[in-house]
This record gives sequence, C-alpha cells and structure tokens, in this order.
Amino acid sequence: MKDILQHDIQHGIKRIDLNADLGESFGAWTLGNDLEVLKWVTSANVACGFHAGDPLTLYRTLEAAKKAGVAVGAHPGTPDKVGFGRRALECSFEEVYTDVLYQLGALAGMARAQGMALSHIKAHGALYHMAATQPETARAIAQATFDFDPHLPLVVMAGTPIENHAETAALKRGLSVRREGFPERAYLANGTIAPRSMKDSSLHDPLEVVARALEMVQHGFVTTLEGGTVPLLVDTLCIHGDNPNAPQIAKAVREALEGAGIRVVASHKIKHIT
Amino acid sequence: MKDILQHDIQHGIKRIDLNADLGESFGAWTLGNDLEVLKWVTSANVACGFHAGDPLTLYRTLEAAKKAGVAVGAHPGTPDKVGFGRRALECSFEEVYTDVLYQLGALAGMARAQGMALSHIKAHGALYHMAATQPETARAIAQATFDFDPHLPLVVMAGTPIENHAETAALKRGLSVRREGFPERAYLANGTIAPRSMKDSSLHDPLEVVARALEMVQHGFVTTLEGGTVPLLVDTLCIHGDNPNAPQIAKAVREALEGAGIRVVASHKIKHIT
Amino acid sequence: MKDILQHDIQHGIKRIDLNADLGESFGAWTLGNDLEVLKWVTSANVACGFHAGDPLTLYRTLEAAKKAGVAVGAHPGTPDKVGFGRRALECSFEEVYTDVLYQLGALAGMARAQGMALSHIKAHGALYHMAATQPETARAIAQATFDFDPHLPLVVMAGTPIENHAETAALKRGLSVRREGFPERAYLANGTIAPRSMKDSSLHDPLEVVARALEMVQHGFVTTLEGGTVPLLVDTLCIHGDNPNAPQIAKAVREALEGAGIRVVASHKIKHIT
Amino acid sequence: MKDILQHDIQHGIKRIDLNADLGESFGAWTLGNDLEVLKWVTSANVACGFHAGDPLTLYRTLEAAKKAGVAVGAHPGTPDKVGFGRRALECSFEEVYTDVLYQLGALAGMARAQGMALSHIKAHGALYHMAATQPETARAIAQATFDFDPHLPLVVMAGTPIENHAETAALKRGLSVRREGFPERAYLANGTIAPRSMKDSSLHDPLEVVARALEMVQHGFVTTLEGGTVPLLVDTLCIHGDNPNAPQIAKAVREALEGAGIRVVASHKIKHIT
Repeated sequence: MKDILQHDIQHGIKRIDLNADLGESFGAWTLGNDLEVLKWVTSANVACGFHAGDPLTLYRTLEAAKKAGVAVGAHPGTPDKVGFGRRALECSFEEVYTDVLYQLGALAGMARAQGMALSHIKAHGALYHMAATQPETARAIAQATFDFDPHLPLVVMAGTPIENHAETAALKRGLSVRREGFPERAYLANGTIAPRSMKDSSLHDPLEVVARALEMVQHGFVTTLEGGTVPLLVDTLCIHGDNPNAPQIAKAVREALEGAGIRVVASHKIKHIT
Repeated sequence: MKDILQHDIQHGIKRIDLNADLGESFGAWTLGNDLEVLKWVTSANVACGFHAGDPLTLYRTLEAAKKAGVAVGAHPGTPDKVGFGRRALECSFEEVYTDVLYQLGALAGMARAQGMALSHIKAHGALYHMAATQPETARAIAQATFDFDPHLPLVVMAGTPIENHAETAALKRGLSVRREGFPERAYLANGTIAPRSMKDSSLHDPLEVVARALEMVQHGFVTTLEGGTVPLLVDTLCIHGDNPNAPQIAKAVREALEGAGIRVVASHKIKHIT
Repeated sequence: MKDILQHDIQHGIKRIDLNADLGESFGAWTLGNDLEVLKWVTSANVACGFHAGDPLTLYRTLEAAKKAGVAVGAHPGTPDKVGFGRRALECSFEEVYTDVLYQLGALAGMARAQGMALSHIKAHGALYHMAATQPETARAIAQATFDFDPHLPLVVMAGTPIENHAETAALKRGLSVRREGFPERAYLANGTIAPRSMKDSSLHDPLEVVARALEMVQHGFVTTLEGGTVPLLVDTLCIHGDNPNAPQIAKAVREALEGAGIRVVASHKIKHIT
Repeated sequence: MKDILQHDIQHGIKRIDLNADLGESFGAWTLGNDLEVLKWVTSANVACGFHAGDPLTLYRTLEAAKKAGVAVGAHPGTPDKVGFGRRALECSFEEVYTDVLYQLGALAGMARAQGMALSHIKAHGALYHMAATQPETARAIAQATFDFDPHLPLVVMAGTPIENHAETAALKRGLSVRREGFPERAYLANGTIAPRSMKDSSLHDPLEVVARALEMVQHGFVTTLEGGTVPLLVDTLCIHGDNPNAPQIAKAVREALEGAGIRVVASHKIKHIT
C-alpha cells in the first residue's frame, strides 16, 4: 500500500472530490434522485433532519452511500423545514453550536449503527452563507465540529476575495478545510458566485458545467460572467442533487474529469492507495 | 479500589438508582425544575428533541447533570411535541428503529462534546408503553440500542405479570435491562400500575411515596390499591420531574432510602467504589 | 335558471362528483400534479397544513382551483407531517375538535381572501379512518364542522356494512353527508375496501378504474375482489392525486362518465343549472 | 344608547386600551398566567399556532377571554416555535402574506365557533419588528389583513421618529391602526424603545410602570432613559403577559388609570356606550 498523495504528486496526477447534497427527502415527499447521483459522486452531504431528512430517509441514504462506496458527511441546516433551510435566521452562538452538535451526533449515530464514520461536515443553505459572513455563526460551527470530532474537515466556499468567516474560524479552531467550487454556478470577476437573481447565474448545460469543472481542477481558475478569468483553488466540486438532471450532470463531470486523467476520489481517501 | 457490588453483598447493603425525566423544556417554555431534581437523583433520562427538548436545552441539561455527578441516559420519544409524546402513534419497525437511533446519536453527540457518555436508555411516554405491549416496537428499540451501543442498558417497567415485550426484546437482543418502579403511582393486585383515570392512581404525599419506595427496595414488594401486596423487584425508581413538588419528593425519597442504609447510586456505577 | 336536480330527475340524468386530495406539497417538496388533476375533477380536498400543505402551497392550490372552476373543501389531518397524517394517533375529543376547527378556519380564511367559500370537508388519512371507527373522533369532527359552518357537508366512506361512525355522527349533528367511492381500490364482498396489504387491492389500469367508476355511478354496485358484486351508493368518487398517473386516471374516468351521459359536477352545484 | 366617543369628548374623558399577548402556551408547556391577566386587560392578542399556541390552547384562551369580556385579536408570528418567533427570519412577500392569512383564518374560525369575532391584529416578536423596518413585510401583513377583513385594525408601535413601515403600509392599504405604547420598556430621546441589551431597558417595578402609563395616556409623552421627555401618542398599552408578575403589573396599571378618571376599554368598543 502506497500513499496516493505521494504517488499522485510524483506522477503529476491531479485529484478532486465530487460532492452532492443528499437525503433531502422528508416522509412522503421525495426530493432528488439520490441513487442515481450516488453512482457518480465521491462524497455525499447527508441532511440531518432540521432543514430536510427524516430519520428513515437518513438511514437509507447512508445505507445507499455505503453500498455505492461514497463517503458521507453531515449537512446540518437551520430548523426551518418549510423554508428548506434557505432563509437567513437570526441565531445566537449557543443556538448554532447546539443545533450543529445535535445534528452531527444524530447522523453520526446512524452511520455508526451501519459501521460507517462521517468524513466531513458542510453547512446547508442559509447556514452555509451565514457562516461565510457572520463570525459568530462561523465560530459556533467550527467549535461544534471540533468538540464533536476535531479530525472532521469543514467544507467551505472556495475563492471568495473577501474573508470567508467559515474558513477563518475553522482554521483558527484547528480544523482542516475543504474548499468547494460550484461548476453549475456563474462566477463574477471578484471571485464570488453570481446571485441567483442575475441572468445566467446558473448553468444547466452539462457541457458548460463540464468546461467549468475542468477549468477549476486543471487550471485553478474559472471563466467569469464578465468574460475574464479569476483564480479558484478547489478541493471538491458541488453537484446540485435536487436538479432533475443532476445524475446526467454528475456523470458528465465525472467522466470528463477522469477522461482528463484526474483522480476523482473522496477527500479523506486521498492519503492512501486502496 | 474495591468492587461496590462485592462490598455491598458482603455487608448486605441494598442498592438502588433514582431516576427522573429531565431536559423536557422547549425553547421559551420551561418544564420542571431540573436543577433542584438533579440534587437528589442518580440518573437523568434526558429528552432527545422529539417529544421535548431543543438542542440548547439538552446541552444545558447534560452540563448540569455532569456538574451534579448524575448519570445521563437517552429518553427518546415519538415525534409529537404538541402531545408531549404521550399519545400512542402507529409506527412501523423502521420508523421506531430510526427515530430511536437518531435520538440516541443526537444526545450521545452532545454528551461526547462535554466528555460524557450515556449510561442507559429509557423510552418516553407512549413509546415506553408501546414497547411494553407491541413486540415490533420493542424489537425496534432493542435493535436500535444494540446497533448504537450493545453495552447500553434499557430501562423497562418492573413487575408486570403479563409479558413486558420491551424486556423480552432487550434480553433476547443481548442487552441488559434495568427494572423500574414508580413509587408515585398506585399498583394493582396484578402487579400493573393503576391507570391515571382511576381514583388515587397517583400519590402526591411525600410520606406515602417514601413508604412505597422503601417497600420496593427493602422488601421487594409494593402495597396495592386493593390493600394487599404484590412482589416488585426494582433496579431503579422513577421520580416524576415535571411535578411542581418533584424536588421535595426526590429529596424525601433519597433521604429515607439512605437513612435506611440503602446505597443510592447510578446503576452503572455499582461495580466499583469510587 | 332552472333546478338541475329537478331537470336531471325529469330526464333521468345521473350525477356524480369527482374529488381529489390536492395541496399536499410542502415547502420545497412537491407532491402530485395538481394543475393537471384540476382539469378533470369537480371538487378538490385541499390540505390544511397539519399533515401537508404550507400556507403558500394552500393559497396557490385554492387559486388554481378557482381558475379551474373546481369546488374546494377542507382536508384536515392529524399533526403528523413526517407520517403524512397516515398513522393512527391517539387523540382526545378536545384535540380532534380543535385541530379540525383550526384547520377549517385557516383554509376558509385563505379562500375568503380570494373570494371563495368552502364547499365541503373531508378528513385525511388516519383521521378519516379513525372517524369511521371511533365514535369520539367522529363526534369531534362533526361538532367542529357544525360549529364552524352547519351547512358544510362531510364526505364519508360509502357502503361499509358495519357502522361508519363518521356518517352516524354527522347525521346526528344535523350535517349533510357525501358518500364516497374509491374506483382505484378493490372492494371485498362485505362492502369494505380491501386493505393495502392484500394482493390487487389497488387498481392502476385506467380501464379497470373506469369500469369500477361506471359500475358505482350507473348501477350502484361494485364488483368485488372475490368476483361477485356488492351494493355501493356514491355521491362522489375519489381520484388519488398523488399517483404519478393521476391526471390520466382522472381524465379517463371523467370522459367515460360523461360519455355515458352522466353529469359530472361538484356536489354543491347540483341544485341549479348555471 | 349614546356614542362613547362623543360622550367622552364632551366630558373630556380620556380613553385607553390595555392589551396583552396571551395563548402562548404549547401542549404540555404553560407560559404566562392568562386567567389572571384577563382580569385586567381589555384586549388579548392571541397566539395563532406558529410561534406558540396549539389549537386546544387557542380555543381555551378565546373561551376565557369571552368569559372575561376581553376583546380578542390575532397575534401571528413566524413559523419558529423553538425560537418563540423572536428570531428575524428572511421571508418573501408571499410567505409573510400567506403565513399571516393562514393564522388569521385559523384564529377567526376558532372564535367564530364560539360566537366571537376578532377585533384587531398585532404581529408577534420578530414579525412585529420586521414589519416596522421592512416595507415588503409591512405590505404583506397589511395586504393579508385587508384581504381577510378590511375592517380589522392593525396594532403598530407608537412614536418612532423614523418611519414605521407597518403603519405606513396599513394606512396606505386603508386599514386603521392602533398605536401601542410599552410602559414596561424604557424609551430613548429619539422616541424609540431602548434595546434589551441596554441597562435599565425593562421596568419591573409596578409603580414605575404605572407612572410611565399615566404619562403616556394623560400627557402624551414619556420620560426617556436620558432624563428628558419625548412625545408619544398611544391608543393601547401593552402589558407583557409572560412576566411572572404580569397580573400585578396589569392590575396596578388598570387601577391607576381608572383612578385617574381614564376610561379603560377595548379600542373597538369606544364608539358606543353599552
């Protein structure tokens, strides 16, 4: 057994993780096509019951990820099911800290019962964005993660020119981070993602998404909406699991990356050749 | 260091655990006087967020229990906050299994962040009663407990002449059980607890509760509503934490037990003298 | 303007209402294809927020029903979103009474804001079945309906040989009832619907469903799973809105009924020709 | 029968309404001492189930208000029970509009079943503050109120020097408003309420609260934290129902006002002598 990182560095092989948000159904309501998406991604961010995901859904999602050999991470959100965790909610440090801890434990317990361990944590929706812009929220998430398991990496948005408080707080707390790119979203010249309200802020054509993914992974930059390029260093690419054509996008991106000689592998597995 | 069990057996010292359901506040709503009750009990059954208990409440309850030196267990319920988990709910094996697993993990994660471990599990309200009477529900709880941690004992109702399925399923699954008596409730001649709808089914006078507790622990029986006695072997006594006078009851019971030379100690601590 | 009832009786024209459960999406989660189903049914049972349906979903469902000229009724359920209101829940008279009243008011208020009025009420899932078998639950629903609006008819299951308590309670309380047939479900020789656990208990072939619907409306009986027939007098037929092919089923049934010279019209509109 | 307004104007009698937020218990969790507070206030703002208040609690609160002869209004909040509706939540116009409409209808239906009608509407907590500062939220509440019942007055905060969007939107929409003072809160020289984070921002001494109430009603101003006075014209005074000493405060304020010859009466009743 040899170290993949070592091996890949010696041979100049680039590596990337492909992640998707899964387990976001709820009771009788189905969202996304998790089983198909699991064929192509290497990491699943599994909902934890606050913004989506009832216990049975979570269990089955973990089970399916295990079967597919996909790494699982916690994807905690705000307690706002009707808003799918997408609405900013004013929370105290203590509320965010305990909400995240509760969800981490719940998912980890379900994973443990199946002989699995969590490989990462990534906040969902409004919590992800609140963490990027609010130091208190960022610190609460980092602290909860650290207190639960100091070896759990936190996924944060790559490439924002302004300070990403989620990343700052995680690094300060001693956590490792995974920087995330969004090949389905348009970027602006300042390195931020174009707001959804802007024209062409989302890409739906698999070919365009693939081009974007290759730019990020192979060259470390991304073409912006304005036409130029901006640097973007990524450890993982997010594929949106709730799009109707998510499986096609995921498949196209994975095949293109592997076709270009890039190793597509879960972040936590890059240390060793299996 | 010597083994308490050994020591107590040699000296003929009886032991008992005193437990109470705590952490059952929710957001702005307070229930019970947990801090006072924690002074007298040896085990806390901490709500897990389904029938009661938001994450911040759970965290603080665990923190207070730690400070008080009280053992903590999971107290999972049905997903029915408005009914406080007291209403029977038709659930499948899978639903009970994953609901319990989710709640166990959530509470254990919060405990872990504070350097604590769970010492037991006790189902709440309707789930406790459903487990006693429905083999499927009982099996689901036992299996979830086993898959989460096979060393976690399950608290079950003591002394029912008819089969208690919760106990059967736990023993069959290889779990240990803790048999629980209710000194604040009247018992019938057949060994069951008198339904709340019956006159005098609940005892509120600390002296009466104390007498009942001493009977159970010292003599292994309890005086029934009909006037006779019925055998009742208990490992732990439940003090209802949501009564306004819960602290007084808990204090009275503890002092009476200790006054009678009984060792009041959390079940999982009885193996060693500290 | 002439009385339809009178006209239809004179000309021997049979009438039937077609109803479907709609508005059962929740936040980001979509269930059913309401807009398509609304093209074919004459009455919509709109979820009221307890088992399904957030306020925005309810508002839009009412708006779409108005546009489609479809009558709207309240479809209250148990407070059990994760179980979609399908799990029996032990409720007191007061709980059912106030839960139904709350939901009736909420939906009626939303309808009023759009210049609409409710035409009926039909309990959902577990509440529908609990009402059929539990006199207390049946009385609570009937009383809540009566106290809210004594002119609101209650939809109940047609043709059960054993007493349907929902019907008994409604009639005793002075409400009118609408008896409902299920052309997508198999019936047993005793006039009850075959449980879902039985083989062939659900019909998915539009032709079979149509045949069942015509039997009920034209002849007042239905062919049973055992092969014979059993009498079944219906005022309304339920089309399940959450089946993927619900629109096709609804279209097939409606066209077949109209092709057979039957007037398909909302129950409350049968008094007058427009 | 003579017009109170006319009568009071002729005789120089001032009038004021006393309101409190009630019905904020939830299931097994009790908040406030509603029955005691109802003895002293003239208007109850009844929770509607989103931030607090289950259907049974709402029904009983309305029933108690009826018995006490107290006017009832709707007190809708954000869908955030665990945060008691006190946390700002990013909502669209459509979400606020339908959330308010749903809650208005639910409470009005419960009132109707008891032969009562709503006399006003007052947003709760975060929604109240969001309405004051966000034009979209304010417009959504005003429009929902208007579409439900254009004669329902909206309670808004009195005396803010900066624009209160809730008031602007209500008046623009053609609703009448009731301006509300808070005798238990300190005011700043700019006419706003001192934030809770400031020292002495809340008054707990009944004598101080009474002095504040008399200033507002008799003289149309209030002494500020800085020591001067600022004009404040109020139609109604809010007594916080969730303070342990809420009944004493309410009693003291009412008796002081009546002792000073002021008519304490629900806003909607001031038109006629009974």
